[in-house]
Amino acid sequence: MKLSERIGRLKTSPVRKLIPYGEEAVKKGKKIIHLNIGQPDIETPRVFFDAIANYQEKVLSYAHSAGLVELRKGIQGYYQRRDMSYALDDILITAGGSEAFLFIFMSLFDELDEILIPDPYYANYNSYFSTLNIIPRVIHTHAEDGYHLPSLEEMEKSITPKTKAIMFSNPSNPTGVVYAKEELDRFAQLAKKHNLFIISDEVYREFTYGENKAISFGTYKDLDENVIIIDSISKRYSACGARVGCIISKNKDFMAAIYKQCQARLAMPTLDMIGATQLYALPDSLLEEFRVQYEKRRNTLYTELQKIPDIVVSEPEGAFYVFVKLPITNAEEFVIWLLTEFDIDGETVMFAPGEGFYANPELGKDKIRICYALEEKVLKKAMHIFKEGLAKYLSLKNI
Amino acid sequence: MKLSERIGRLKTSPVRKLIPYGEEAVKKGKKIIHLNIGQPDIETPRVFFDAIANYQEKVLSYAHSAGLVELRKGIQGYYQRRDMSYALDDILITAGGSEAFLFIFMSLFDELDEILIPDPYYANYNSYFSTLNIIPRVIHTHAEDGYHLPSLEEMEKSITPKTKAIMFSNPSNPTGVVYAKEELDRFAQLAKKHNLFIISDEVYREFTYGENKAISFGTYKDLDENVIIIDSISKRYSACGARVGCIISKNKDFMAAIYKQCQARLAMPTLDMIGATQLYALPDSLLEEFRVQYEKRRNTLYTELQKIPDIVVSEPEGAFYVFVKLPITNAEEFVIWLLTEFDIDGETVMFAPGEGFYANPELGKDKIRICYALEEKVLKKAMHIFKEGLAKYLSLKNI
Repeated sequence: MKLSERIGRLKTSPVRKLIPYGEEAVKKGKKIIHLNIGQPDIETPRVFFDAIANYQEKVLSYAHSAGLVELRKGIQGYYQRRDMSYALDDILITAGGSEAFLFIFMSLFDELDEILIPDPYYANYNSYFSTLNIIPRVIHTHAEDGYHLPSLEEMEKSITPKTKAIMFSNPSNPTGVVYAKEELDRFAQLAKKHNLFIISDEVYREFTYGENKAISFGTYKDLDENVIIIDSISKRYSACGARVGCIISKNKDFMAAIYKQCQARLAMPTLDMIGATQLYALPDSLLEEFRVQYEKRRNTLYTELQKIPDIVVSEPEGAFYVFVKLPITNAEEFVIWLLTEFDIDGETVMFAPGEGFYANPELGKDKIRICYALEEKVLKKAMHIFKEGLAKYLSLKNI
Repeated sequence: MKLSERIGRLKTSPVRKLIPYGEEAVKKGKKIIHLNIGQPDIETPRVFFDAIANYQEKVLSYAHSAGLVELRKGIQGYYQRRDMSYALDDILITAGGSEAFLFIFMSLFDELDEILIPDPYYANYNSYFSTLNIIPRVIHTHAEDGYHLPSLEEMEKSITPKTKAIMFSNPSNPTGVVYAKEELDRFAQLAKKHNLFIISDEVYREFTYGENKAISFGTYKDLDENVIIIDSISKRYSACGARVGCIISKNKDFMAAIYKQCQARLAMPTLDMIGATQLYALPDSLLEEFRVQYEKRRNTLYTELQKIPDIVVSEPEGAFYVFVKLPITNAEEFVIWLLTEFDIDGETVMFAPGEGFYANPELGKDKIRICYALEEKVLKKAMHIFKEGLAKYLSLKNI
């Protein structure tokens, strides 16, 4: 009895594969500051919990496969306030961004079809690429350029007749880049010229800093048939454990394909959608409060990072990640070493090794992703541990 | 821009595709008794809601990818009380049975691999067969035999070198059959002889009537490496809207493959698992109470069905479905007619047409699935409407 080849291609999540080392360290009494996972410490708005606690039905029934209509209306209103007008049928609720990826990839790609994507990219895209046998054609971006896009000509080189879509997250997980209008225009031009879907993962939309603003691909009105938006409450409202996301598109055939998959899995959890509905009823000023908090964290983190010698890092523009190039050849070993061999007063820090964020893991071996979704004093302490740890590691390894 | 071939193969859920007719009927003021969908009217135990209402954390964080350990322990204890001993690592939590199907199929099947399965079978298996391009090799069962299995030799005929697994639900959705020990032994023999996984969907385990008992494949100790059990709280605890299921197996490589997929989608909703944990802490006597209720409903339904001429129906043995052969050639048209053209005092009834429960839809065109998860007086009324409706339909169509 053999398992499938498709599952053989699936690697353990790079963000989660080091968890056993972390658990082992905790068992030994070490305290870990988790900058490896995008788990904010900002409180989930109480209305989420209150709405669920007030649920009055006696039977917890299947919800509509498309998601609760009240939630879909809430999302519709959220986009309307941002000058993007969607019909209810353009919005389908998914189990977080994760189910959105799965449903979208199922709808667009047969085996060996290709997707155009800037690297490094969100590691979990790889999970679905591998099980569904979708080939990523990569647009390389670099720490030295702050992970901004190369020229249109350079991007176009990776397109083949098998390319079905362009995908990216903006603001980006893992790099923190926010694409400028001219960069998004490049995606738009490629999509038009080569008849490609645009899969725009915009779950970090609000979290942009300084002059940077994340322009939604929903504002490209001439690309209504091409554009697919992935959204989620996980980061926006600090509600990762609710697992409520959505897919948004004006392409009717595509949405019909998504809806069939929604029906195949019957329904989303009823209560989480009831809570999420109340989140979307909150004033947008709350999101600005969150943004200001993350901006302070970004500033603190970047200030501390600049004190660390020999790393390559640009000022993060959005989301709550920064992708750092280290002066070492195997960042994963360093991350494991921090967990197993190093601490300051019983505390250490955990990062996500960079290799999982690439189609070609070699390109990420000298990099880590740092998540700064935690409060400033924790970030300061973590960066101190990182700085001292890196110095000690370099001296130990005689680098 | 074309969608994928895989999504082109996915048909709309037969249980859900007639929903628009239902919605239209409701708009016109008609009341519909829903026997088309497995949605019980039994109250979800309050402990589920209370545990969630008492959640004290300020941040709704990602849960562990494997599911909450307390819930997994609860499930472990539930099986222990039934003399099946599982390690915690043998149990992984999924988003209902639906995600369990997806993860299992992904783990075992590459495109064009084959699955051995008695028909009619749960319609949503087809959704995953079609998108993943898994070929169902069917063991035909018949209304006249109460949908029991044919001989070992007959079953074996459908096995080819591409067959990777045997799958079935027991008690069965949609037929209500409960396989006898000798029938399960046939599956076991085939699995051993041909090196097949056994995917045993046991979500209706408790719901068996009269002398019938559902034997779990977890009791076949010599098949530990082969057996995969799908389970769920949806029907057991009348909590369909929680979307909490699980995969259970002692095959370590297989469970490692499932766990990788659990990690790829990050986590299940935290609160639903907290509620589910309390359900598994309830005494098993509650499940016996539920069983008794369903047995009464089964008895009522079957009594009423026997009054309807010219249909073929056996006494349902388990779950809360019966699969009825009608004296007409297109049951879907009849179901639509009941919604659009017929009522008694403003009320009508909705069934699931049979064709979606087959690999070859032709075999189900004269059948319907009736779900009897509703209270007896509603069932009586529904069977009256069915009886009168069928008589009128036959006379109108001059059958």
